[in-house]
Amino acid sequence: MIIVLKHDATQEQIDHIIDRIKGLGLAVHVSEGKEKTIIGAIGDESVLAEQPLEILPGVEKVMPILKPYKLVSREFKADDTIIDIEGIKIGGREVQVIAGPCSIENLEILQETASMVKAAGARFLRGGAFKPRTSPYAFQGLRDEGLKYLLDTKKKVGLPVVTEVMDPRDLELICEYTDIIQIGTRNMQNFRLLTEVGKTRKPVLLKRGLSSTIKELLMSAEYIAAEGNDKIILCERGIRTFETATRSTLDISAVPVLKEETHLPVIVDPSHAAGRWDMVPPLAKAAIASGADGLLIEVHADPERALCDGVQSLKPEKFDELMKVLRKVAEAVGRTL
Amino acid sequence: MIIVLKHDATQEQIDHIIDRIKGLGLAVHVSEGKEKTIIGAIGDESVLAEQPLEILPGVEKVMPILKPYKLVSREFKADDTIIDIEGIKIGGREVQVIAGPCSIENLEILQETASMVKAAGARFLRGGAFKPRTSPYAFQGLRDEGLKYLLDTKKKVGLPVVTEVMDPRDLELICEYTDIIQIGTRNMQNFRLLTEVGKTRKPVLLKRGLSSTIKELLMSAEYIAAEGNDKIILCERGIRTFETATRSTLDISAVPVLKEETHLPVIVDPSHAAGRWDMVPPLAKAAIASGADGLLIEVHADPERALCDGVQSLKPEKFDELMKVLRKVAEAVGRTL
Amino acid sequence: MIIVLKHDATQEQIDHIIDRIKGLGLAVHVSEGKEKTIIGAIGDESVLAEQPLEILPGVEKVMPILKPYKLVSREFKADDTIIDIEGIKIGGREVQVIAGPCSIENLEILQETASMVKAAGARFLRGGAFKPRTSPYAFQGLRDEGLKYLLDTKKKVGLPVVTEVMDPRDLELICEYTDIIQIGTRNMQNFRLLTEVGKTRKPVLLKRGLSSTIKELLMSAEYIAAEGNDKIILCERGIRTFETATRSTLDISAVPVLKEETHLPVIVDPSHAAGRWDMVPPLAKAAIASGADGLLIEVHADPERALCDGVQSLKPEKFDELMKVLRKVAEAVGRTL
Amino acid sequence: MIIVLKHDATQEQIDHIIDRIKGLGLAVHVSEGKEKTIIGAIGDESVLAEQPLEILPGVEKVMPILKPYKLVSREFKADDTIIDIEGIKIGGREVQVIAGPCSIENLEILQETASMVKAAGARFLRGGAFKPRTSPYAFQGLRDEGLKYLLDTKKKVGLPVVTEVMDPRDLELICEYTDIIQIGTRNMQNFRLLTEVGKTRKPVLLKRGLSSTIKELLMSAEYIAAEGNDKIILCERGIRTFETATRSTLDISAVPVLKEETHLPVIVDPSHAAGRWDMVPPLAKAAIASGADGLLIEVHADPERALCDGVQSLKPEKFDELMKVLRKVAEAVGRTL
Repeated sequence: MIIVLKHDATQEQIDHIIDRIKGLGLAVHVSEGKEKTIIGAIGDESVLAEQPLEILPGVEKVMPILKPYKLVSREFKADDTIIDIEGIKIGGREVQVIAGPCSIENLEILQETASMVKAAGARFLRGGAFKPRTSPYAFQGLRDEGLKYLLDTKKKVGLPVVTEVMDPRDLELICEYTDIIQIGTRNMQNFRLLTEVGKTRKPVLLKRGLSSTIKELLMSAEYIAAEGNDKIILCERGIRTFETATRSTLDISAVPVLKEETHLPVIVDPSHAAGRWDMVPPLAKAAIASGADGLLIEVHADPERALCDGVQSLKPEKFDELMKVLRKVAEAVGRTL
Repeated sequence: MIIVLKHDATQEQIDHIIDRIKGLGLAVHVSEGKEKTIIGAIGDESVLAEQPLEILPGVEKVMPILKPYKLVSREFKADDTIIDIEGIKIGGREVQVIAGPCSIENLEILQETASMVKAAGARFLRGGAFKPRTSPYAFQGLRDEGLKYLLDTKKKVGLPVVTEVMDPRDLELICEYTDIIQIGTRNMQNFRLLTEVGKTRKPVLLKRGLSSTIKELLMSAEYIAAEGNDKIILCERGIRTFETATRSTLDISAVPVLKEETHLPVIVDPSHAAGRWDMVPPLAKAAIASGADGLLIEVHADPERALCDGVQSLKPEKFDELMKVLRKVAEAVGRTL
Repeated sequence: MIIVLKHDATQEQIDHIIDRIKGLGLAVHVSEGKEKTIIGAIGDESVLAEQPLEILPGVEKVMPILKPYKLVSREFKADDTIIDIEGIKIGGREVQVIAGPCSIENLEILQETASMVKAAGARFLRGGAFKPRTSPYAFQGLRDEGLKYLLDTKKKVGLPVVTEVMDPRDLELICEYTDIIQIGTRNMQNFRLLTEVGKTRKPVLLKRGLSSTIKELLMSAEYIAAEGNDKIILCERGIRTFETATRSTLDISAVPVLKEETHLPVIVDPSHAAGRWDMVPPLAKAAIASGADGLLIEVHADPERALCDGVQSLKPEKFDELMKVLRKVAEAVGRTL
Repeated sequence: MIIVLKHDATQEQIDHIIDRIKGLGLAVHVSEGKEKTIIGAIGDESVLAEQPLEILPGVEKVMPILKPYKLVSREFKADDTIIDIEGIKIGGREVQVIAGPCSIENLEILQETASMVKAAGARFLRGGAFKPRTSPYAFQGLRDEGLKYLLDTKKKVGLPVVTEVMDPRDLELICEYTDIIQIGTRNMQNFRLLTEVGKTRKPVLLKRGLSSTIKELLMSAEYIAAEGNDKIILCERGIRTFETATRSTLDISAVPVLKEETHLPVIVDPSHAAGRWDMVPPLAKAAIASGADGLLIEVHADPERALCDGVQSLKPEKFDELMKVLRKVAEAVGRTL
């Protein structure tokens, strides 16, 4: 921790700051520059993280040296984490595509969609049983019934499944039905939910919050890892900016930044980022080109009649076409799909 | 709902769009302009809200006419909602100040702080027992014990209390101890929690999400109101922008915009917005001047030793000075405090 | 400058970094922490500011200690700069209001508006002769003719005037006609224009860029000051965020932050921030309450027929009402108006 | 134009609105819905664009139907614009790479860099003679001398060149030396400069502003086109958001959105977007995969000693490696490089 002092800090103030730091068991190094004096606190920085040092008289600013996350950092574990789900590996050389409808609406459409995305090369099926909707008057998902449809479809079509949990009270039930638990954008900082999910041993797909920094996404992953669950897949899905041409702004740079900062696999959801189906193919290609380990794509057998997010769902034929190009892009960057 | 067609939409496409809208029970009006044809869908717009009309071939864009919220809108109820809590009115001519520490740390400091903020003119005590923290390694609150300290302090000092709920499983317990339930920034779109809180009859302090629009804040309030609980206090607490000089950017315009859009009371939290105690007084004055119905201010008897948010907490003496000026500002704009 | 090394930096890399810093004439202090080694470069930090130290192998991040601006900083000059324009002081105890139409459209409306804002208490007249417009097809201002109307009005009504310069080629002409030169939002980082304006001795009203940080605003002021012109009035006018309820988001916190960081006067333009006339009064009151030294408000004798920004212009009667309340708010915070 | 009325608009207000619209020569269609009345103004919408209709009593909101740009829109011209510069085509099937140093520092490094980027496959050389710098104390470019070096290098190495204009007074000179005129990020809304550049017949590389919407970028292109110059290359270079892991957030979605909205070529500058050389390769690959027509990449023979933006410059070897992969990515999406 580096503490930069105000240019007019008094000796008494400096002494008080030094006392505080030493009192916490850290060593102190004072460096008097031409214009500013700075104090270095040497030792376990996490002890200081909770201290309101900025408030001490004479302090201009406090600059942490260490990263606030540990278990999920590349420094802690240099090798890529590869998560094996029923023999399919996420985080390795092979790029994995998760596809399916936004919400589970009925068994027939779910199975039809599942068969088609599997045929096109998707390795996982997505589908929401519990849906977070901005409006209380919108379709909220089929809940328990939806979970059953998901399991039926998994058995019939043979794709492992991903579904979202919104409430700690549903977690046990959802764990029985799903292969990967999704934490949605709006729950990325639902810390109680993160803790509960961390206590399970299920793989977790953690979506970045709409206005969360990459650092905060990693801190949320740290919550899960701190409970002993390190099977975490990070998902960039667009952030909120001033631009309104797309629903969110896909932060494509997050992919290489995350690959550098963490050993966890990183996937991209171009459907929610764009909010328009016609932008999904270019964003999906960009994601693979930038180094993503996978994609989460909304596909619906009949988007015109979807109860949720039909606007951003690809028809199965379009998805099939896209997969063919994605395969080439993956190869161009040394991956397979 | 206005549907703007692409300049090259075919008659077949137009007919298909008209059929879809009529099939939903709405009337249609087609207007052929010089450059664009537009279709007006007349009737209950909420029927259309869920339909992915943008996806229909020939459609360029869809523009809703109505607001997506209803119960909380000024159109639904023209008069200001005034919430009476133990005889103290929020939303009326009198500006109310809620003050206290970020988190409850021990009974002594809580009571000391409570006495001092009461003496300075605060009418409610705030204090967190369950704390959402970015880091899993940070102090997470005293939980049940904290709630007991809060109730003890309420009895002893005589201020009604506000505390945050983060998890539906804690709601029943928290309701026993608090006068106002706070929904924090990170839970503004925790829709399950909103629904549960809506089923209680406790006043709710709903904080705006870091990257939530004013419209989304009102949609979250609508979730609570839709369950029958209309005692909702909205709280502007800063939004996330590119500026880093303050922790968040206080969106002061949200105050007059909300006062126009909704009948609910609107308060401001300058402490979390600024993230620095020295910026709290100017922002608190600005909030009252802009028409806020109240303030939520962090005050701590010993900020240097606070376990949470000490950096942004005012000392009781500073709070007392501030209250004196706030009283004058309130009078300048025709309010009392 | 603090250089934090990667956890696996080699001794060879460290030596190379130290050599580079010493080669620039600075002293070096190496501190080996438990987890990270950091290097402090001691001496004239501006020498290092231009060096791409981040690119050196083994460097994780570089953290500057000093602020990049100097002449405009509060550290350089502790006392408030007060700018005297024809006997009217900006930056002192008295809050000053600049009012008038967005653009000069004809002599009659300008003089009518000028007389009315003067009667209400405004001390300066604003009016654009050269207008930056998003659309090439929109009214671009009366240019030279507008400047003549402005001078006529100044003589007749007796208010010093403010007008915008967009192009270095117009500067000489504009200087003949105006008392304060305005640099608009879109030109805040037009560095050539800043330099030219810095060479004049006219007071400059420098508006913050739509997406400029406070630090960048101060750097742009430094451009002007570096040429010898220190009569700079900073203007917060709203920043671009995701919120669309108002045209920009007024960053009210910028007022106290700037008052702390710099000795220059700080004013607020609530009209451009809000983009709607009905939001101007609450924002104007908030600005004064937060400590602004003045306001820039659009007033038009007939907003319905304004050629530019009519939507955000106050009618003279509304402005008069507002000024009465602003006077009380100014007094509440120890100022006059 | 659609005008939505307030729910309590009076007949008198409605009549006044209708009179205003008819008075401007447009036809009116009134539609009374269940909850709201809306007025459609039919005819030349640009007549209304300048009118402050929102200010008329009884109006809730005004929704334009048409796009504000015309000449640059895909509706105006369906086929891709292909710009031919000395036989090299920008906007066609071949992806073009522009590479070179941020600023021209001396003839030797410029020529060395130019030879190397040419050998790697770049088709244009970039290099700044006039540099916009945030700090007045930073290197501002070699100016006239730099232009001479650029021309010398062009002759010697045989690459057409791109350089930036910041001031209308330099335009004539720069036109003599360059093949493509660059308008930088900070000048995207320097409307006077856009107009002057529009009067030349030189190809223009127009960079998106840091906080400019895609619509505003197109409006700035319209300024140039309105003067008769349609040789405009649009450049996405990252926007300002809350994320600080990269200097800007590359808005990769802007590529497909622009390709749909306009017939102009679209390129991407990954160097300025990332602000770190190690992120340039993944972003460059993503740009090509998303459909960009070209790239603008900073390459410097000795980044450690660059006077400007060394942190984000690739070494020639790294650039060469990158070009090899970019070629494969281009082929994967049906392009060549």
